[in-house]
Amino acid sequence: MPHSSDRPIGVFDSGIGGLTVASALRKRVPGEEIIYLGDTARVPYGTKSERAVNLYALECALFLLNRGVKLIVVACNTASAVALPRLREVLRVPLIDVVEPGVNAALKASKGRKIGIIGTPSTIGSGAYQYRLKELAPDADISGKSCPLLVPLAEEGRLSGPVVKLVLEDYLGSFIRRRVDTLILGCTHYPLFKPVIADVMGSETVLVDSAQAVAEEVEDVLLRLTLLKTHGQGSMKCYVTDVPRQFNRLGRLFFGEGLGRSRRISVG
Amino acid sequence: MPHSSDRPIGVFDSGIGGLTVASALRKRVPGEEIIYLGDTARVPYGTKSERAVNLYALECALFLLNRGVKLIVVACNTASAVALPRLREVLRVPLIDVVEPGVNAALKASKGRKIGIIGTPSTIGSGAYQYRLKELAPDADISGKSCPLLVPLAEEGRLSGPVVKLVLEDYLGSFIRRRVDTLILGCTHYPLFKPVIADVMGSETVLVDSAQAVAEEVEDVLLRLTLLKTHGQGSMKCYVTDVPRQFNRLGRLFFGEGLGRSRRISVG
Repeated sequence: MPHSSDRPIGVFDSGIGGLTVASALRKRVPGEEIIYLGDTARVPYGTKSERAVNLYALECALFLLNRGVKLIVVACNTASAVALPRLREVLRVPLIDVVEPGVNAALKASKGRKIGIIGTPSTIGSGAYQYRLKELAPDADISGKSCPLLVPLAEEGRLSGPVVKLVLEDYLGSFIRRRVDTLILGCTHYPLFKPVIADVMGSETVLVDSAQAVAEEVEDVLLRLTLLKTHGQGSMKCYVTDVPRQFNRLGRLFFGEGLGRSRRISVG
Repeated sequence: MPHSSDRPIGVFDSGIGGLTVASALRKRVPGEEIIYLGDTARVPYGTKSERAVNLYALECALFLLNRGVKLIVVACNTASAVALPRLREVLRVPLIDVVEPGVNAALKASKGRKIGIIGTPSTIGSGAYQYRLKELAPDADISGKSCPLLVPLAEEGRLSGPVVKLVLEDYLGSFIRRRVDTLILGCTHYPLFKPVIADVMGSETVLVDSAQAVAEEVEDVLLRLTLLKTHGQGSMKCYVTDVPRQFNRLGRLFFGEGLGRSRRISVG
């Protein structure tokens, strides 16, 4: 076993949306070796049952632990919202989720304490964002809306145009009527729609994309545990459970240039 | 082992869309006991790789064979288009797919030999419909279009309204310009959009929904093999690999009233 700080960071998501988080990590902690796992054979998690999401998240985490990771980022909002308590109960490895950093970033940004959250049906249905926000800011006006079409739209590569505009106007209408001042993009796919969401919501609303907040949290935790790797170049290895039809095109959309070849593995 | 004709019929789909086929079977061969398997833990198949679809289809078929079925209906267009050759190679049980009956129904309906097909990216990408149509009608003008948003729209229960209209106008535009006279609804979810598709295409275009054609084919094959069960009431048992959030509401949409409780099982 190499020295603890030399061990890789594990990142997993139901698919490739979590590559937005991996991309933020590459910039924030550039010395780290990142192992990314996208469970593309079972994507999406957001419409599956709680039991299924718990099982899948645990299998993904075990895959990463078998590769010796020192910390795991649950870069999937559905898995964070649904499966985190179970993962924490079972596993000793430090776990960073995407909900907590998103909640903290939203509370920091919100002036008027009117906060909205968009996410998959499972994320919104779990109430994870809503409960945590209420806990930290009992006076806040919190509202959530599930947006089941946004992941399929992103995976079709359709990020703008009349259909996207109409769908977003439909989903976001209630937030505009409530005059939310801060909107949490509670799914790693949603940052791709940022321009259209900003256009629909207007420039007054702050959009919180948790990728950046997650990367900062990872750096803090690694520093606290004296596990941060500060020397060397770092790297990124990508594993998937299936190679979907549009993988290469979409991977670049989420991660930017420089996403290497992915290896297909089995975790189930 | 009971007498051969008393054994059940197996039907599987990636999810619950195949319930439209099961519903047509209940009406056409009412004496039969039907075992339905929806692989809801791994839905959708339509965006997964060929390798994954082949594996999943085989696992579903084996689950049904272990329950003693006398015939299997592959009630999933993606599995039919991608995995049928492999299933036929490996399994001895009679297999009915949804592509062949749809192709035959379209050729019977089409006057001007201008035929369009809509389906998932995998179904259209496989070329299964296009090749078979070309084989049987080399003079025909065949065009296919993948419609990745229709399954998520159906699973959201959003079957009409401005978003659906706009999406369908976008997908179907090229068929209108080509003046297709017959359109195959190459996915078991799509019959739910029939009113809007008819509205967009106009009353001149015949819409081919293969559920009915599949049920007729099943009856023919069972008669030919002297396996048709003509006595008794028949029944329908439904198994799923996950119970998705909207299962009960959607199940009724696809099957109609009278869909009993589903049992959750594991096939992977």
